[in-house]
Amino acid sequence: MINVDRNDPEGTIARIVAAHSNVGRWGEDDVLGTVNFVDDAMRADAAGLIRRGVTFSLSQSFDMDGPQKGWRRRTNPVHTMLDTGTDAALGNQGFPHGIGGADDVIAMPLQCSTQWDGLGHIFDHGMAWNGRKAEEVVTSDGDLVTGIQHMADRLAGRGVLLDVARHLAGPGGELEDGFAITAEHLTATAEAQGASVGRGDFVLVRTGRLARAKREGWGEYAGGPSAGLSLTTAEWLHGTEIAAIATDTWGFEVRPNEFDVPAFQPLHQVVIPHLGLTIGEMWDLEALADDCAADGRYEFFLAAPPLPITGAVGSPVNPLAFK
Amino acid sequence: MINVDRNDPEGTIARIVAAHSNVGRWGEDDVLGTVNFVDDAMRADAAGLIRRGVTFSLSQSFDMDGPQKGWRRRTNPVHTMLDTGTDAALGNQGFPHGIGGADDVIAMPLQCSTQWDGLGHIFDHGMAWNGRKAEEVVTSDGDLVTGIQHMADRLAGRGVLLDVARHLAGPGGELEDGFAITAEHLTATAEAQGASVGRGDFVLVRTGRLARAKREGWGEYAGGPSAGLSLTTAEWLHGTEIAAIATDTWGFEVRPNEFDVPAFQPLHQVVIPHLGLTIGEMWDLEALADDCAADGRYEFFLAAPPLPITGAVGSPVNPLAFK
Amino acid sequence: MINVDRNDPEGTIARIVAAHSNVGRWGEDDVLGTVNFVDDAMRADAAGLIRRGVTFSLSQSFDMDGPQKGWRRRTNPVHTMLDTGTDAALGNQGFPHGIGGADDVIAMPLQCSTQWDGLGHIFDHGMAWNGRKAEEVVTSDGDLVTGIQHMADRLAGRGVLLDVARHLAGPGGELEDGFAITAEHLTATAEAQGASVGRGDFVLVRTGRLARAKREGWGEYAGGPSAGLSLTTAEWLHGTEIAAIATDTWGFEVRPNEFDVPAFQPLHQVVIPHLGLTIGEMWDLEALADDCAADGRYEFFLAAPPLPITGAVGSPVNPLAFK
Amino acid sequence: MINVDRNDPEGTIARIVAAHSNVGRWGEDDVLGTVNFVDDAMRADAAGLIRRGVTFSLSQSFDMDGPQKGWRRRTNPVHTMLDTGTDAALGNQGFPHGIGGADDVIAMPLQCSTQWDGLGHIFDHGMAWNGRKAEEVVTSDGDLVTGIQHMADRLAGRGVLLDVARHLAGPGGELEDGFAITAEHLTATAEAQGASVGRGDFVLVRTGRLARAKREGWGEYAGGPSAGLSLTTAEWLHGTEIAAIATDTWGFEVRPNEFDVPAFQPLHQVVIPHLGLTIGEMWDLEALADDCAADGRYEFFLAAPPLPITGAVGSPVNPLAFK
Repeated sequence: MINVDRNDPEGTIARIVAAHSNVGRWGEDDVLGTVNFVDDAMRADAAGLIRRGVTFSLSQSFDMDGPQKGWRRRTNPVHTMLDTGTDAALGNQGFPHGIGGADDVIAMPLQCSTQWDGLGHIFDHGMAWNGRKAEEVVTSDGDLVTGIQHMADRLAGRGVLLDVARHLAGPGGELEDGFAITAEHLTATAEAQGASVGRGDFVLVRTGRLARAKREGWGEYAGGPSAGLSLTTAEWLHGTEIAAIATDTWGFEVRPNEFDVPAFQPLHQVVIPHLGLTIGEMWDLEALADDCAADGRYEFFLAAPPLPITGAVGSPVNPLAFK
Repeated sequence: MINVDRNDPEGTIARIVAAHSNVGRWGEDDVLGTVNFVDDAMRADAAGLIRRGVTFSLSQSFDMDGPQKGWRRRTNPVHTMLDTGTDAALGNQGFPHGIGGADDVIAMPLQCSTQWDGLGHIFDHGMAWNGRKAEEVVTSDGDLVTGIQHMADRLAGRGVLLDVARHLAGPGGELEDGFAITAEHLTATAEAQGASVGRGDFVLVRTGRLARAKREGWGEYAGGPSAGLSLTTAEWLHGTEIAAIATDTWGFEVRPNEFDVPAFQPLHQVVIPHLGLTIGEMWDLEALADDCAADGRYEFFLAAPPLPITGAVGSPVNPLAFK
Repeated sequence: MINVDRNDPEGTIARIVAAHSNVGRWGEDDVLGTVNFVDDAMRADAAGLIRRGVTFSLSQSFDMDGPQKGWRRRTNPVHTMLDTGTDAALGNQGFPHGIGGADDVIAMPLQCSTQWDGLGHIFDHGMAWNGRKAEEVVTSDGDLVTGIQHMADRLAGRGVLLDVARHLAGPGGELEDGFAITAEHLTATAEAQGASVGRGDFVLVRTGRLARAKREGWGEYAGGPSAGLSLTTAEWLHGTEIAAIATDTWGFEVRPNEFDVPAFQPLHQVVIPHLGLTIGEMWDLEALADDCAADGRYEFFLAAPPLPITGAVGSPVNPLAFK
Repeated sequence: MINVDRNDPEGTIARIVAAHSNVGRWGEDDVLGTVNFVDDAMRADAAGLIRRGVTFSLSQSFDMDGPQKGWRRRTNPVHTMLDTGTDAALGNQGFPHGIGGADDVIAMPLQCSTQWDGLGHIFDHGMAWNGRKAEEVVTSDGDLVTGIQHMADRLAGRGVLLDVARHLAGPGGELEDGFAITAEHLTATAEAQGASVGRGDFVLVRTGRLARAKREGWGEYAGGPSAGLSLTTAEWLHGTEIAAIATDTWGFEVRPNEFDVPAFQPLHQVVIPHLGLTIGEMWDLEALADDCAADGRYEFFLAAPPLPITGAVGSPVNPLAFK
């Protein structure tokens, strides 16, 4: 049982880490962390969850209308055209036999919209996942060891939605900013939904935060207050042996963090370097949640392939849920 | 039967288009083209193809070591770090309680590596997909009508690999540059492999071109000579009612194109604006092809979700094949 | 004398343009506009204004702390590192004999901070500078005719500061948002300062708007209300035969614009396509203004070279004033 | 007198540095290095060199046709449009009263074309300019101490062209790749030209390398063999007390470097961290050199303002020479 000393984030984190760690569990060369929990047989089983063939994209849009406001140089995606239909229509392109074309480029932070955090994204006291020195893992050349490309064929399997917002606040309801979701909440939601959670699962937690942003505008969605996982869920995240977790919020864990002194994303500090847990953020779970509520089935086949950007510490993703 | 007049690309294209068009087939508001052929039931059926649970990423890497050389301002991806482990290790980040982080950005053409062409990518005499005026579809604000975001939840279903290289050139073999793959080659390959091709399928055609680039270096992979589909396959592409097609080459169709006068990608000019066919390029089919040859099963479940970049005329993609 | 009909921007603009135009003045091939007014002899004369050798940079910073908020996809500059000193210190760079290095990239709108507008930046009813069709001047390949590179060696000469803020509001004072600076204000300021304005001059107009932003934060600096030139100054801008003009505001002209119906930058619409006037925006005139007030000399040698980005419709610039 | 041991770059560099260093010369807080040598009086004197008023831009173009080939992720500039004249002409922009506009963005390495190296660009054994630890100077947030913005108002003064190519190889001639320009060559060139070099000068050295690239294509211009300054010029660079130096080559110093063992830019390693010398590269000296040869005057007023990009270790620049 995890006790949070609200005046001592560093000590609290140290105690949690002492009790809950996967460092070394898959050998010293491991680059996958909890994604190791998924095997081919699980994926084959999960394929059986595709019944109607209905497909949900769990991605937000990638465009300038996103939530980023410049924090740590994170902008929204800037999408510009190299060639357009207006050029083609006006005969400016110099191509033969009537062919014309449009082409485009993008500049964006890899974590500006719906995303996976890579294992090189967060460090604890200079230590990256699996006990490695951060400075030997992520340099200006990127993540030399645990780059997101290692996950290229790994982020697929059984998905389970835990619609905590609906469970606690009813249909259309949502969790308040600062609400810390505990292991008890997760377990109770799973039970109420009739959806087990276990080894190798991809768990999607819905807080309703994105629904509010869609309704009221972004406001402080990127970086501001939000419901999210309590630091105390570290034990549950470790014990359930899930493969990965994603939320409909910017930062996965509750904001403000559960301390009375300055603190910043302590659950990240535990689960990325010590558990090797892959985290998804800013996922759009709305349509999927409606469907799950309608048919009572909260499990599905999930395919959420990151772009294999060599050395990236995160990746934009368009996750697909198949039911 | 399509006759190519090698001195008249414009006339040849016009004759093909007159005989093979889906314009209007799905109503005047359509934004999906041949992807309409896939329905939920097909996807549910295709899920049954996932047996061992083995997963193949069909994506090349996204990094500076790619094939782009600057043609039409297409560069390789430029991935840079906003924060690194060296910064964290040296205590430069200013975060509390020992947390450190790495973050990154990317700037890239949307079609620099493994990709989907969007329906706004190519025009015929100023006409975009479904009879629309190109200048009303793709402006500097991007594709206002058929942007890739409309495909966010659509690019998944039954995949079929047609390993034409292996069929014609044997194990480890590859097609010569300039070799035009005809409908007969496609049909014969499918038969030899015991893999049917039909409505709603995602067809992946392997030429061996990428295998050569992996072995010998990129050379002219991006834009140079290559085996690829013959212009005459337009009839087959239309008649089979496939959902989409992808190849292991830069440009999908044979290069140089099949004319004795200046020509540029005439098959694109037919199939994107007139068939509404979604095309994938620069896919890495090597590992999948080996597995298909090994177990004799050339069909699989494919999930190839584009990033829903608003208004994009293409998208990077990490396609996953599940067997 | 220009009369503004506050309910008819289109008609008002048309009347102004009919009376004040340089179209054709320098031949049909002209790509320089009013910059033609500066000749070498004027520059040699202006060199005589360099007496103490003191130098003022009139540029704002280029970084994420700038005023841009995403309007029309304008972000602040995103500056990222390709190599750093932390990498070098930790021995990650692989160079011989102890050399280490840092390198960097930038992504930015060309008009995100201190800038010159190019002659291809604004059109009037589809007409670019000198009577050319906008669609034949600026395509997705950039400005094919009047790109900023043509100004590479032109934007230098005699500079004159008109500190209207100081003249009207006293030392430390500033003009109110929405205050329209008229030709009378400009003339009176010049007289009060003892600084003539004439052919080939680079005129810098200070409103105090940037001083406020420095004091109070950006707020709506980029695109919001501001003092600025009245539409009625078109006559003065034409008649004085100045080479170029720049202000300490985002948009050069008064905001909101001087109409009771929807309007947007009507003075731009007049002076760029019809006068061929080069406009500078977001210049930092604070230190220069203090010095001019101190020594009573409001003229100087100005060197404000744009980056010769081929086909650009604007350029970032670090203007230097030498006194 | 500097002796180069061709088998010992590290030792050779150490010996040079022991004899030639400005570390501490301007106090421990210095961020300007040799630019300190220029004072206002010198600038006022240099203004007297502006006689005819003729102006030369010493900048290459900034576009995709540049020399970069991807080394260390350096691309050529990617310039794309946010709005174009074709959009305006076709009425796509939604502005009132007939106004239309074009706007653009750029993504580029700061040292992709004509540039200044900042003082944070090169380190010697983890030491940056003036004895500072590299890791405390340049992090992922950029150069926190000696960023190029400190040079915003400093890079102007008396310029001297040393046309070594013309002096040694005659009109139209050029130096061979690998030719090491020594102090004797520099001195002899200055004498032959009748141009003194001294404290606070901006010295521009022409090798003819760019002339060849203009004639024959880029080839290996960016990073390949080239004439350039010998490592032995460190003494001259130190003793003359010049403010800055620039060349028409990619890398300022001779390439290959003057060692028989692996070496990389040893003169940079000496002059940036130990002399605090600001270096310009890839300058286009052709038109200026022709003019100097024609009138026999090799001195001029130089204004070469960097963009004040906060924390940058280099800057693109359009240097102007006034005669």
